[in-house]
Amino acid sequence: MTDATDHKQKLREICRVAARVFYEKGYDGASMQDIAEAVNLTKAGLYHHVGSKDRLLYEIMNYGMDILDETVLEKVKSIEDPQEKLRQTIIGHIDLVVRARDLEITVILHENRSLKGPLRKKINARKKAYIHYLEDLIAQVQDRSGHERLISPTLAAFNLLGIINWLYQWYNPEGPISQEELTQACVDFFFRGLLGSPPPPPTRPEDKNPFV
Amino acid sequence: MTDATDHKQKLREICRVAARVFYEKGYDGASMQDIAEAVNLTKAGLYHHVGSKDRLLYEIMNYGMDILDETVLEKVKSIEDPQEKLRQTIIGHIDLVVRARDLEITVILHENRSLKGPLRKKINARKKAYIHYLEDLIAQVQDRSGHERLISPTLAAFNLLGIINWLYQWYNPEGPISQEELTQACVDFFFRGLLGSPPPPPTRPEDKNPFV
Repeated sequence: MTDATDHKQKLREICRVAARVFYEKGYDGASMQDIAEAVNLTKAGLYHHVGSKDRLLYEIMNYGMDILDETVLEKVKSIEDPQEKLRQTIIGHIDLVVRARDLEITVILHENRSLKGPLRKKINARKKAYIHYLEDLIAQVQDRSGHERLISPTLAAFNLLGIINWLYQWYNPEGPISQEELTQACVDFFFRGLLGSPPPPPTRPEDKNPFV
Repeated sequence: MTDATDHKQKLREICRVAARVFYEKGYDGASMQDIAEAVNLTKAGLYHHVGSKDRLLYEIMNYGMDILDETVLEKVKSIEDPQEKLRQTIIGHIDLVVRARDLEITVILHENRSLKGPLRKKINARKKAYIHYLEDLIAQVQDRSGHERLISPTLAAFNLLGIINWLYQWYNPEGPISQEELTQACVDFFFRGLLGSPPPPPTRPEDKNPFV
């Protein structure tokens, strides 16, 4: 392992643990001493790795966006059909949000008021790039459908993000709804909202077999 | 004005100002002294009104749920048609979330990790009651449609809450999308997702007038 990947691994470990501490105590409530103890470093050692508390919060959020890139966007990059690409992006993003492992990072990524100035701008630029990716993909799906757009790609993208990012507030993977069921229902709901789709006409018993 | 309504008015004023302070400094970062100064009370005067910092956070959240009841649910109570009742509930709830006046209260209502124990339980019970109200209404709308359910009422309710509650993260009433356009698009998107609806078939030029 090179020094650079070694440093990256260490930084990510610190991010995961620090995210948990921030999640429990709040950004303002958690001290660098609390975090140093949780990651088994001296306070000086922690500062050596992350520079400052602000910078640490930024690194956690940046790590959150890295995970999205690495585990979702990289995997769908080669899919040509826009609808399938969008579907797989949604599935991957839902998986990311409901996976317990990254819960704290997900939460912190959405509560970014504590981050200020240029670091906040950097994170917002990465978030915006993802939104543009979704908007483009949605517009392609709409154009290929051969129908008029039922909703603007921007609004559809934010509705999608609302559905996905709200999951951490209520969804319990140990509860009655399996992740598979959840994902399928959200994907279908989103595509109906985006493209419309006729429900089958109500079936009357006599319609079932016209030859009987 | 009776003493009781007088107290309620004062409490609400404190809640609005304190919500702004918590929003800016974080719950852990804001001191009771900060809040007392912002509402023009002595620290002792503030404690007299709210009891404790925990209790103040609870009162803010409770106030948030009161606003939902008073400005949305009261108004739709007399609507008989479930679909129209649901539509008006969505419109009212969106209005509540995008109104700048209550932004801080909305945000705090969704970041309720700082609230602990019985007070947290009380707020969660009120949130659950609202979710059950939505689930019931959604189930009625589905049943009246005469088609099979395309999504469980629970999942539809949480998707709806995700769409609405995410708005504060991105929607700017001063931006290019008017509140009317936003609301209409969200309502239509939700009902298509819930019930499905066929887009009109693509129009080919030769279809336009079969007699020409």
